[in-house]
Amino acid sequence: MKKIAVILAGCGVYDGAEINEAVLTLLHIAKAGASYQCFAPDIDQLHTINHLNGEEMQPNRNVLVEAARIARGDIKALTELTANDFDGLIIPGGFGAAKNLCDFAIKGSDAQVNPQMLRACQAFANANKPAGYMCIAPAMIPLIYNTGVKATIGNDANTVHAMQKLGAQHVDCAVSDIVIDEQYKLVSTPAYMLAQSILEADAGIEKLVGAVLRMS
Amino acid sequence: MKKIAVILAGCGVYDGAEINEAVLTLLHIAKAGASYQCFAPDIDQLHTINHLNGEEMQPNRNVLVEAARIARGDIKALTELTANDFDGLIIPGGFGAAKNLCDFAIKGSDAQVNPQMLRACQAFANANKPAGYMCIAPAMIPLIYNTGVKATIGNDANTVHAMQKLGAQHVDCAVSDIVIDEQYKLVSTPAYMLAQSILEADAGIEKLVGAVLRMS
Repeated sequence: MKKIAVILAGCGVYDGAEINEAVLTLLHIAKAGASYQCFAPDIDQLHTINHLNGEEMQPNRNVLVEAARIARGDIKALTELTANDFDGLIIPGGFGAAKNLCDFAIKGSDAQVNPQMLRACQAFANANKPAGYMCIAPAMIPLIYNTGVKATIGNDANTVHAMQKLGAQHVDCAVSDIVIDEQYKLVSTPAYMLAQSILEADAGIEKLVGAVLRMS
Repeated sequence: MKKIAVILAGCGVYDGAEINEAVLTLLHIAKAGASYQCFAPDIDQLHTINHLNGEEMQPNRNVLVEAARIARGDIKALTELTANDFDGLIIPGGFGAAKNLCDFAIKGSDAQVNPQMLRACQAFANANKPAGYMCIAPAMIPLIYNTGVKATIGNDANTVHAMQKLGAQHVDCAVSDIVIDEQYKLVSTPAYMLAQSILEADAGIEKLVGAVLRMS
């Protein structure tokens, strides 16, 4: 049975992992007959957002502790992730991917990836194992792979411009579709960067999971 | 397009709505061509559990504010739910259903349903509109419907006994199946009371959503 590592950025679209994207990822991995293990960095979130009114709230929360909600407690610290143990990697989106796993949400084309995250993702890249990034998570791709790597976040002009400055070759993509960089076995899909419904997100996520598993 | 009201008990299996159950409910409603609106009571949780280590943590959180994470902010206070506006009702499980929506987790066969919750659920019962309860949420059913109402939480002996004392006619049920009380247009499924995987939970939830929509 193939094993996929899933890295979560917290629990909630505005400050963590987008919950629908995360659960649909787990669903499609399981439907395809593969297994998964969730990971998250044991770090403070950039901030915590009240999802009812959009305002920042106190106290701040921990990414790993909150991500454990999605994983029903079955989650490990990101420092425990070893690419050797897995056949592929998938990273759901949500603002947490751009706020906690890297600082793209604040720094745009000056972004850096969290060191734990960079180490984990580059290990999959260096082993030429497939990886899937969805929603805003592909903003990290040019910081993990070489200049010219192909990826999509849909078609948002400002985000595309920042990714291009970071070195990505951005490919516009419909919500129900995926972009594959065959050289790097790298898959991306817009998910809730474009999705107007859970069905639209689901379509692209199912394809992304399928492509990661096929290349593994 | 049929409209289903979904009541969430927070965000996370140990103190709120079980996240997989909630998202799979929304997915299957949308796949069936219906629409949904999420609701949650604007009340404090019974307590807040760190999902990484299982311990209680401070400060406590609000059910509506946390449930908004699953609903991407598109959620209303439970007091705004009017049965007239919807074709059916679905209540995902998670401990929050037995801790926040009622006090079954503490009081067992002496449980009472939160008054807002009772009003909302009885309105669907009185209108003979279909409802689906999953996981531990069916523990509330004998407090909402008449004595002898048929429901399932799977086969956990202590839970079954308490539900029977409350007046339910409990029917043992496999994780992938549902129990229907035709008189009340009432559907229940064990979900994570029995599920060992997201696939097992998904099978019963898909059937529950389908049955609620067929009876609406």
